[in-house]
Amino acid sequence: MKKRIAAVTSSYRLLNQKNHASNRILHHHRRFNANFNQVIRSSSTSEGVTHHCGPVPLKHFLASCRWDLQKSSLIHMQNMPIIQQRNFGSVASTIVQRNPLFSTINHDDIIYFEKILGVKNVIQDDEELQPANTDWMHKYKGSSKLMLQPENTDELSQILKYCNSRCLAVVPQGGNTGLVGGSVPVFDEVSGVLVCDAGCILENLISFLDKQGFIMPLDLGAKGSCQIGGNVSTNAGGLRLVRYGSLHGTVLGLEVVLANGNVIDMLGTLRKDNTGYDLKHLFIGSEGSLGIITKVSILTPAKLSAVNIAFLACQDYISCQKLLFQAKRRLGEILSAFEFLDAQAMNLVLQHLDGVRNPLPSAIYNFYVLIETTGSNESSDKEKLEAFLLHAMENGLVSDGALAQDMNQASSFWHIREGVPEALMKAGAVYKYDLSLPVEKMYDLVEEIRIRLGAAANVVGYGHLGDGNLHLNVSTPQYDDTILAQIEPFVYEWTSRHHGSISAEHGLGLMKAEKIYYSKSSGTVQLMASIKKLLDPSGILNPYKVIPPSLLS
Amino acid sequence: MKKRIAAVTSSYRLLNQKNHASNRILHHHRRFNANFNQVIRSSSTSEGVTHHCGPVPLKHFLASCRWDLQKSSLIHMQNMPIIQQRNFGSVASTIVQRNPLFSTINHDDIIYFEKILGVKNVIQDDEELQPANTDWMHKYKGSSKLMLQPENTDELSQILKYCNSRCLAVVPQGGNTGLVGGSVPVFDEVSGVLVCDAGCILENLISFLDKQGFIMPLDLGAKGSCQIGGNVSTNAGGLRLVRYGSLHGTVLGLEVVLANGNVIDMLGTLRKDNTGYDLKHLFIGSEGSLGIITKVSILTPAKLSAVNIAFLACQDYISCQKLLFQAKRRLGEILSAFEFLDAQAMNLVLQHLDGVRNPLPSAIYNFYVLIETTGSNESSDKEKLEAFLLHAMENGLVSDGALAQDMNQASSFWHIREGVPEALMKAGAVYKYDLSLPVEKMYDLVEEIRIRLGAAANVVGYGHLGDGNLHLNVSTPQYDDTILAQIEPFVYEWTSRHHGSISAEHGLGLMKAEKIYYSKSSGTVQLMASIKKLLDPSGILNPYKVIPPSLLS
Repeated sequence: MKKRIAAVTSSYRLLNQKNHASNRILHHHRRFNANFNQVIRSSSTSEGVTHHCGPVPLKHFLASCRWDLQKSSLIHMQNMPIIQQRNFGSVASTIVQRNPLFSTINHDDIIYFEKILGVKNVIQDDEELQPANTDWMHKYKGSSKLMLQPENTDELSQILKYCNSRCLAVVPQGGNTGLVGGSVPVFDEVSGVLVCDAGCILENLISFLDKQGFIMPLDLGAKGSCQIGGNVSTNAGGLRLVRYGSLHGTVLGLEVVLANGNVIDMLGTLRKDNTGYDLKHLFIGSEGSLGIITKVSILTPAKLSAVNIAFLACQDYISCQKLLFQAKRRLGEILSAFEFLDAQAMNLVLQHLDGVRNPLPSAIYNFYVLIETTGSNESSDKEKLEAFLLHAMENGLVSDGALAQDMNQASSFWHIREGVPEALMKAGAVYKYDLSLPVEKMYDLVEEIRIRLGAAANVVGYGHLGDGNLHLNVSTPQYDDTILAQIEPFVYEWTSRHHGSISAEHGLGLMKAEKIYYSKSSGTVQLMASIKKLLDPSGILNPYKVIPPSLLS
Repeated sequence: MKKRIAAVTSSYRLLNQKNHASNRILHHHRRFNANFNQVIRSSSTSEGVTHHCGPVPLKHFLASCRWDLQKSSLIHMQNMPIIQQRNFGSVASTIVQRNPLFSTINHDDIIYFEKILGVKNVIQDDEELQPANTDWMHKYKGSSKLMLQPENTDELSQILKYCNSRCLAVVPQGGNTGLVGGSVPVFDEVSGVLVCDAGCILENLISFLDKQGFIMPLDLGAKGSCQIGGNVSTNAGGLRLVRYGSLHGTVLGLEVVLANGNVIDMLGTLRKDNTGYDLKHLFIGSEGSLGIITKVSILTPAKLSAVNIAFLACQDYISCQKLLFQAKRRLGEILSAFEFLDAQAMNLVLQHLDGVRNPLPSAIYNFYVLIETTGSNESSDKEKLEAFLLHAMENGLVSDGALAQDMNQASSFWHIREGVPEALMKAGAVYKYDLSLPVEKMYDLVEEIRIRLGAAANVVGYGHLGDGNLHLNVSTPQYDDTILAQIEPFVYEWTSRHHGSISAEHGLGLMKAEKIYYSKSSGTVQLMASIKKLLDPSGILNPYKVIPPSLLS
């Protein structure tokens, strides 16, 4: 949607985009936050290789070889500490100890790979490897000397079978290929089911569906480069979750290659199928550690044309909650976004971003809420929204508000909400947390951290209130270890105590594998480890990630 | 909704309802078909015990003891062959061979169970056991001599641990308890998340939520007796799937007891949580064969007040498909049902059900479509529906149509669609199939079977077109083995060839465990078996079901 396209921010850069320069720079402003999420998801290290966590290759696939493991995964970060400190809350000081059971790659391996893939798809050139060895945020640096590019499921299967037999660890990497040869998506406009190769770039799928009058049930900032297989393997959330739910609900089928090379065909296209265990869910969100997704079928919603946006002010957090409750009742079927930001976030945006003006300038309010509706009929949707707002104002839930009258106004409202991360970066160092919490408890955490840190920091809360997803950000003029020590592990412990998630949509990767117990019970983690050992007994797939490695030995 | 309540049909009877007489008889007419589905789901035999396939106890739990295994699971059927033949397509002639590794229950076991549960919850009385030993449709008959009724997770855990160590096979059974002691549901009206014990009866949850202005995302005919734990473990579809999706999308968390008695706490209440593998999906739809669900958290939608219903006539099946396509585009956010029936089904209803009249009597049409919308605003929703219908008629997709003007009319429209199963039963013997198929292929099967059987049978097609779910029914004056031989395995082979599912929402249970390959690849089934062996190494949970037993030895 045009209204959401804004200036490109200089902080956007994705790995391995040389073939997709236009995608690389085409980042919509609205996507900023989601893009950041995607980045986190993409920033894990294995065997010294920086890579996308669970993504899915088909065209691009990285076998991690020459195990010159960096003692610290932060080497690159140490070269540019200021940039790093401005971007990360939790500084991962993980030292990965290489698993001595893994083999070292040799000449025979190369010969084998070249036989299967052809010489051009077995890449050893340092310059070509460098982008794949550096993560999007320059947080992790790898030293892999080999990158493999299988072009289809069969090639991938052969490679994995070989790596498994040789005990060569493997890091799946996606996000850097286009629609190739056989990967033309197949779409059924009656059922709305799309079937495609995992290597399809999300934005290409969105464009493809647009012509048919449909949309993808997910959309996110990295859409110009991320692949649907990577989206599925990381269970990407994105902008449409509040309306269309998670990928566990919309993905209908998968084709997956297991660590032993076995191809598991679960590529159903049916909404209803109760024949046995629904195993595809194991691979949705497991970050490539259980198998590599090679094909996806997904249910796509029809594209609806009428979009309305309101920007509202609330005096307190309880009013925001009540407003959400009312919106679910009164706007139920057309509600497509319910976002919030606090006064601290608003001030940052007004202070640091050019051309932003406060749509409600008559007073300073404690909270701002952005509500978007999407439906099939402009006038009737607008009528519903207006009636809802009138009711909310009469009941004192809303102190002031504005309804966008055109695309420009709508875009400017979104710009405020989406400008928060950029404003935070301009303000100094930022400690960032992406948490799921019960809505009624969510803002208590912001206030507790605020009290805890006092004048030393600006504590900012905003996020997807409709999803129960809080972006807690602590802003300081400069990075400071003592601030971090006051935030962590407090923030994780608090989240755990309130039954929240320490990673709403970022995944665990390498950084948070050991922190899994904050959000998952010991029995559940043990069961995850059993499943990992069952599906990948040698542990060659994305090692050291998701599950604490101590459980897998 | 009142309009959907109609006469109780005499064919409704659920097991073990003595404590819930009012629930037992309160079946809404609309629920007829869904109820039938629930029945199938509930009709499996293990160790000669008839039971609900995967249901979930908390209050009612059945340990299958005294392994006086019936040589045939059809003994009871042979006593009342006519009723059986009128109700089932596929006659299950499965002979279950008892697994010799299972132990036989002894006096010490009884003493142990009584110590854990108290004497009153260890039931050996034949009369009390009889309903639990007879399935809802009298298709399977068991001879279990012991029924256990744990009251909480801890008791269940102790029992399972004991049964596992003694290698005593266990059949979970639900559907016959009320809200007891500690099972009061907890609801958060801001997030819309409900947390409750698995033993909660669906209808009680619906009533509970109604007072808060919310609904359950599933609704089905057996709601007066089925339990939410059973719904989840069988992945019940029900009436709201087209709008709110499957339980894989709406269930947020589960507590599960594994075969070894370990309690796995996955009872999250968050919409977004990417910390590790999402293992709850293993237990959704696995029919109690991987673990027993004891607690459920589920996302509930707000209750919307405006319901509109149209009954339309189409000349051909392609018009039905185009109409569905248009409905998704133009009614997207308010569409809550898209059902169809063919002329054969319509004729049966008009012929066999009292008080039914054709809303479109001016001509005979080949297909009828029922469209329901549910939204938050009566007038604007009606406006949308009228505009949609006008457009459809102008484009020749619809030949005739009626829009319900009041509750009575709406109810009478639903009565036609929902009366089909009852009309079929009145017409004679019925061979019933519940299939998922690609929408564009769906009706081809009906036509092929029609040609195949010729004048010998009346072949009827109807179902949830919006979900791609066909109810294929073959009606004959009397049951005939040669007719069955002409339908099966043809219908399964055809479905398999078109990548459909042989069990859209009924599950596999005992009857279709060996037929799993028609819908699932060999590699997928092997993987299911591996997971089963990992989670239940002794195979004590719901033995002989879901997975072909030969894979588990």
